[in-house]
Formats: sequence, C-alpha cells, structure tokens
Amino acid sequence: MSTLAPVLDRLDGNLDKSLTRLFDLVRIKSISTDPAYASDCRKAAEWLVADLKSIGFEASVRDTPGHPMVVAHHEGPAGAPHVLFYGHYDVQPVDPIELWDADPFDPRLKEIEPGRKVITGRGASDDKGQLMLFVEACRAWKEVHGSLPCKVTLLFEGEEESGSPSLKPFLEANAEELKADFAMVCDTGMWDRETPAISVALRGLVGEELTVRAANRDLHSGEYGGAAANPIRILASVLADIHDESGRITIPGFYDGVEETPSQILKSWENLGETAETFLGPVGLSIPSGEKGRSILELVWARPTAEFNGISGGYTGKGFKTVIAAEASAKVSFRLVHKQDPAAIRSAFRKFVEDRIPADCSVEFHPHGGSPAIQLSYDSPFLASARQALSDEWTKPAVMIAMGGSIPIVGDFQKFLGMESLLVGFGLSDDRIHSPNEKYDLSSFHKGQRSWARILDALTRKG
Amino acid sequence: MSTLAPVLDRLDGNLDKSLTRLFDLVRIKSISTDPAYASDCRKAAEWLVADLKSIGFEASVRDTPGHPMVVAHHEGPAGAPHVLFYGHYDVQPVDPIELWDADPFDPRLKEIEPGRKVITGRGASDDKGQLMLFVEACRAWKEVHGSLPCKVTLLFEGEEESGSPSLKPFLEANAEELKADFAMVCDTGMWDRETPAISVALRGLVGEELTVRAANRDLHSGEYGGAAANPIRILASVLADIHDESGRITIPGFYDGVEETPSQILKSWENLGETAETFLGPVGLSIPSGEKGRSILELVWARPTAEFNGISGGYTGKGFKTVIAAEASAKVSFRLVHKQDPAAIRSAFRKFVEDRIPADCSVEFHPHGGSPAIQLSYDSPFLASARQALSDEWTKPAVMIAMGGSIPIVGDFQKFLGMESLLVGFGLSDDRIHSPNEKYDLSSFHKGQRSWARILDALTRKG
Repeated sequence: MSTLAPVLDRLDGNLDKSLTRLFDLVRIKSISTDPAYASDCRKAAEWLVADLKSIGFEASVRDTPGHPMVVAHHEGPAGAPHVLFYGHYDVQPVDPIELWDADPFDPRLKEIEPGRKVITGRGASDDKGQLMLFVEACRAWKEVHGSLPCKVTLLFEGEEESGSPSLKPFLEANAEELKADFAMVCDTGMWDRETPAISVALRGLVGEELTVRAANRDLHSGEYGGAAANPIRILASVLADIHDESGRITIPGFYDGVEETPSQILKSWENLGETAETFLGPVGLSIPSGEKGRSILELVWARPTAEFNGISGGYTGKGFKTVIAAEASAKVSFRLVHKQDPAAIRSAFRKFVEDRIPADCSVEFHPHGGSPAIQLSYDSPFLASARQALSDEWTKPAVMIAMGGSIPIVGDFQKFLGMESLLVGFGLSDDRIHSPNEKYDLSSFHKGQRSWARILDALTRKG
Repeated sequence: MSTLAPVLDRLDGNLDKSLTRLFDLVRIKSISTDPAYASDCRKAAEWLVADLKSIGFEASVRDTPGHPMVVAHHEGPAGAPHVLFYGHYDVQPVDPIELWDADPFDPRLKEIEPGRKVITGRGASDDKGQLMLFVEACRAWKEVHGSLPCKVTLLFEGEEESGSPSLKPFLEANAEELKADFAMVCDTGMWDRETPAISVALRGLVGEELTVRAANRDLHSGEYGGAAANPIRILASVLADIHDESGRITIPGFYDGVEETPSQILKSWENLGETAETFLGPVGLSIPSGEKGRSILELVWARPTAEFNGISGGYTGKGFKTVIAAEASAKVSFRLVHKQDPAAIRSAFRKFVEDRIPADCSVEFHPHGGSPAIQLSYDSPFLASARQALSDEWTKPAVMIAMGGSIPIVGDFQKFLGMESLLVGFGLSDDRIHSPNEKYDLSSFHKGQRSWARILDALTRKG
C-alpha cells in the first residue's frame, strides 16, 4: 500500500486546523523593515520554533545582528536524501492601510467568486502561507507514519523583505549544519490556477557604468561643431552597435556558454499560450525587442540581453543650450543565461567599447555587480520526480518555467552551500503580494500542502 | 590727388586726441545687465550723441523700454552708397574685480612687450574701442574734406551684452529710417595681429528636442529585458544613424542647399596655417569629428553639422537600477550653411527619426529655434573693395573667414531691413573681452581707424 495516500487524506482532514495555524502566524505583525516590529519578528520566529518542536523537529531561534533565523532539523531514513527547505516569516509593510478591505493582520477566509475561496491578510501568500505548506506536509507525514520520508532541514529567514543583510554571513557561518543534497525554495508562483510550475532557470546579471570623455571642458557647438568629438555621439554609436538588425548582441564572445533550449521545453512553453501580445500588451507594447525568431517566453527566460538602464550627458534641463559636452555616461546591464561567465562578459564588453572610442577620447568603466545564471539541468531525475508529483496533484501537468530576473537566495545556496535549488511555489499573479489586500487561494493552500507531500514521497522513492 | 591720403594723415596726427576721446567713453560705467548702471548707460549714449553732433551728424538718443539707442545720420554725395554702421556702447560687468590689474573704468596705455602698446579697460575692445574707429574715420573725413564720401547712418545699441531685448522691435519700428544699402558691423576680430579679416559666413541653427516613448511605465529589466522595447536603445540607434562612417550626415536631403566652397577660398584658409592640432589641441583633442577629407576650418566655417547637445533617460543617479525606462530624450542641433532651409531640415530630421521608431513606440518633437545661415557672396564687388582696402593697410592681405556660430544682429538686419552685413573688426583673440584685464591693441585702434577710412574710400569709388 502507498505511504502517500494516507498522508494526503490526513492533510484533507486537517485543513481547518492548518488554516487556524496559518491565521495564528499571519496575526503576528512581523514587518522586518520597520524597527517598531522587531519584537513581532522574534515572536513569529518563536511561534515557528514551538510549532516545529510540536511536530518533533529539533528547532531553535538563531540570533543574527538583525532579525533571527529559525533552523530546524529532522532525521530521515538511511539512504534517503537530505533536503533544505527555505522560506521567510517576515512580511512587507501594510501601507497604504486605507486601501485594505480588512485588517491585514486579522486573516479571513473569503469567497471572491463562486467556488473560489481565498485567505486574506499580509503574508497570507508571501511567504507565511507558502512556508506553512511544507510544515503541514511534514506534520501529516509524522502523524501518519511517525517519521519523515527524508532528512529535512528547515531555514526560515526574517529579513527577506528588507534585503537579507544577515543571510550570507549566516550561511557562511553555518554551512556545515545547513548543507543538504539540495534546497527547496517556496517563494514563487504557479503558471496559472490550474498549472503548477517549477522554475528551473534564473538569469544572471552583469552591470556596467561607462563614461565617455572628449574635450577637457564643455564647448560651444557653434565654435567647435564639426571639429570636436561629441561624447554623446560616441556613446550613442557604441550603444547602437551592441545589437544587430536581428536583435542579436554583437559583442565578440557574448554568446559563449549560451545553450539552445531543448525543443521539448520550447514546445512546452509554446503550449502555455503566452504571446508577444499577451505578455507586452499590459505595458502598452506588442513587438518583442530581442532576437528575432524566438518566442516571447524564450526571450525573457532563456536568452541573454543587453539593456541600457540609464543615459545622461550634456544639457538636459528646460530649453536649449548649444553645448558639446565634455562627457556622457550610460548604465548598461546584461542578463546572462546558462554558462555565460560574468567576468568574461564584462571584459568583452569593455574591449568592445574601447575599440570604438576615438584615439583622442577616453572611456572609464565602473562595475555594478555580476552573478552567473542559475540553470537546473532539464533532465535531472529529482526535477523529473518533482514534476511528476505536481502533475499528479493538479488539473494540468507541471511546467518548467524560468525567471527573467534573479532570486538572490538561489545564488547564495549555490555559492555558500554548493547546493542547487528546486523552486516550487503556489502563488498566483493576482495575489497582490507587497500590496494592499494580499491573498492566497485556498486551493493553493490545500493542494500546495498535498503537492509537497507528493514531492517528498517522489524524491524519496527516486533518492 | 587722392582724397584718402590726407584723411589717413589726419588720423595719424590726431591719434592722441582720439585716444583721449576713447578714454572718456571707457570711463563711463555702461554695464547694461546691472540696473544700478542704467544712468551710466544713458550717459554713454548722450556722450556719443554729443560727439557725433560735434562732427556734424544729426544724432539723437532714442528711448527704448531698456537702455537707449543712439541713431545718427550724415548725408553723402549723390550716387554714393548709403551704409549703416552698427556697434554697441554697453559693456560686460567687471567681476571678479580683484583679478583686474587696474581699475577697469580708468583706461590706460600700457606697453605689454617691446613695441606693443595696448589700451586697458572694460570696453576698450568690446565694443567701445571698435565703434570709435569708425567715428574717428568719419571725423577725419569731415575735418579734411568737410563731407563724408557716402551717406552714413550710425546705430549704437546699449543692450548687446544683455541679450538685445529692444533691438528687434526698434529695427521693425524704424525700418524706413535705418534701411541702407548694407550694414557694417564692427564687433569681430582679426585673424592675427598682422592679418585683417572679413567674416563672410555665419552658420545657421536648427534645434530639436525629441522624446522616445516605449512602455507605459518603467519596467524591471529582469522581467522584461529581451521582450520590451527600450527607449534608450531606440534613441541611441537613431542618433548613431545620423552620421555615416565618413562623418557625413545621412538624413535624406540634408545637404540640399550646401555649396562647395570655392577652391581659392579653401586655399586661402589653408594658408592660415590652422590645423586639427592647433585648433583642437587647446581643448585636449586632435581628431576632427566632422566629414573626412575637409580641413578643420572648412568643417567649422563652411560645413553643416548635427550635434547632440543633451541626452537623458532611465536611472542616472548613483549606483544601479535594473530598469527599462518608459522614455528617453535628446536635444539635437544642426548648424546650417549656405542655402540650407531650416524648415526643410527640421522636417527631414523628424521623418528620419519617425522611420526608425518601432511601431509600438512613439516619438514627440519639440522645436528649439531655427535660423538660416548667413553667406555673403564671395564675389560681391563691395566685399572685394573692403578686402583690398584692408590689405592695403595691414602687413598681410585680408582673409575672408567665417564663423561657426551666429551673430544675431546680422540675421536681424537681413530680416528686418533686408540688408547684408560686412563684418570687419580689429579685436584680437587675446583681448580678454568679457574677462578681467580687457585690452585693445593700440595698433588695432590706430590702423583700425585707417582701415575704415580706406574702406569708406574704396566703397565709394566702387559704389
């Protein structure tokens, strides 16, 4: 007989109790960015520790220079994998409070359309609701079997909404204790209400600021126009050279380490039905700006970019000034995918620019961060297990998606603990996280618990 | 016997007296921009009227909403041309006063190197010294011959250093009275201490501001990079397209009305010995930015340009922001030559830009002024006469030069009085006009008087 089925039954039977627990946690005003709520943050950490201890975890509140971490451990059977589950108990501020339909710290169950119930309150989705899914799944396993199917470490942070200042030092200082076979991060969303998603790729980033200098002072464009180099013209020309007609980036070596996305993955993305119109329409656009011949999702999920984030030079006030500026600057960033090397990209970019600066002018660079892309192997067996588990739970099969931006924790786990992360979450795009009237669908809360139970089961069997 | 020779002798003999008169005028603190000196400005105008009346001019102080004009008339022989001579009696402020070696309003004669004497004081060169040259030439003609060789109208302005707010209305209101065969403007310089110059061309100007708009709000470059149009990229690409590899402007029709400068003029400019190194060296540059294969003087004097005077978009503060901006702007100006039509250039530029804006983006234009170039005909007989007269006076032959920028009065004379201007002046590049320790070479003051006497004589004989 399946070990999973009774766990799922238990989750179904305990739904009301699990809701009560989530409501208790949501009531704690753990706003990390506002020092006035420091004791609430600690209270949330203590609440979690007490709850985890009641399940049988060895759990403790761990002080940091900021808000505390919660770390908990539970043994698993010999030979089973060891997973680290990450979530955060802190929440965003609630301003503007007058836009909330109800007290953000008095969570409720509300029917927003026939048959669709949601949990309202700050943190209902981000990330208290999401982290409790896994706790509830563990609780049910323990209640049914007296054990967990694998070794579990939990790490709940209290500063995610305020820049995670204590996280890196904590990971470094406690690397031995926290290291597991892989991490599971529950801070992302589903593709839609019927389709669960696993984020398998996050783009990396290289930021550069460049300043082109020409004459040793601002010049009059009547007196010097046609004679003196114009740094805005040079800068515009350099930036314009970075993309070719097809939207491809022309910097030599830029595509080193970029892989073609497997055709079955591309096919699955196509099946999601996202088009340039649906993706860009809400922001008033319709034509993809990236490489021609690739779908909109491939462009933002699996292709590198060069974007110009800021530019300035010369006279930019009201009216007109016939000046040839002494210098002009731009901020440029590259989103990286697959195995692109941030250091190599930075150096190739600088050479590309330097090659285009006239001999009597100069350019100065200032670096702004660099991190490689995160790319899980599409054919990893634990990814396949998780995907199957999710597909078994939901109406539609799970999709492997990517994210155009980065989630710092994933890079930190890789860097400090040498672990890959499985990004699974059950948020929906209408959850209004960080905004008034945050909510979490009851179906996310219920089927999310069942999903984690299934994933634990599936990983164990493959592990 | 020549009518000119005794006039020149008279000027030589009266040099000390003419210096005394200039000193008297320089002592009047006619700083137009500072209301505290309004009565000094009027005093300068009254001083000039009195002096001109003493020569036999019908002269008057003419009120304006600002500082007064001086207008004076003197008849000439039937059939002789009628010339309008323009100068300005107002001067720049003297700050920082502590950098002056002597009281700016206590003019002196000072030997700055063996055999080189200069007149020091605010306005000694700009423009009191220059305007008195012509007055002295007229005085000598009158003293010697009892008459002037042509009909002369004088217009001395008191607001040139503060934007000439009253000039246009005054020209319009008094067009009939002021209209002459041509104007003579003495507010420019010599090529060097031995070489007199006539400015025969001034470039025109078209200013445009453009704003490229893409998404309806700022976007996150992780989420939208590779998908959403980036207005900085579009703007950079448009600006980069404006010049080709050879520095030529690619806007269709841009060169309509641009003429090739006659080879003998180019040759005479070459003989001036100005190179890219001598012209650009002082501002820290060495490579001309304009059309390849043309001399540095041709580039700034006789070729049109497109210059980018300002650019802005996205995040330009300290640090970095991974934003794709909703819009980006630039200020662009074109210097025009010969018969280029400002309206046609503006409209060709706008079409050029619009052709390069993606269908889901937009561009908005804001005009900033437009004026055609001023170009005297190189083969006009009165230019030839003036050139010969100057060449007769100075060590080296007069050169016909041009100016990269504009002198508004020249356009105003053309527009309101339908007159061309002869731009002859005897300032030197080291006169420090607008700065502390302004000076005017005694040779400019002496030979400048003689030069105007010669020009009047030459014009009359050709007239």
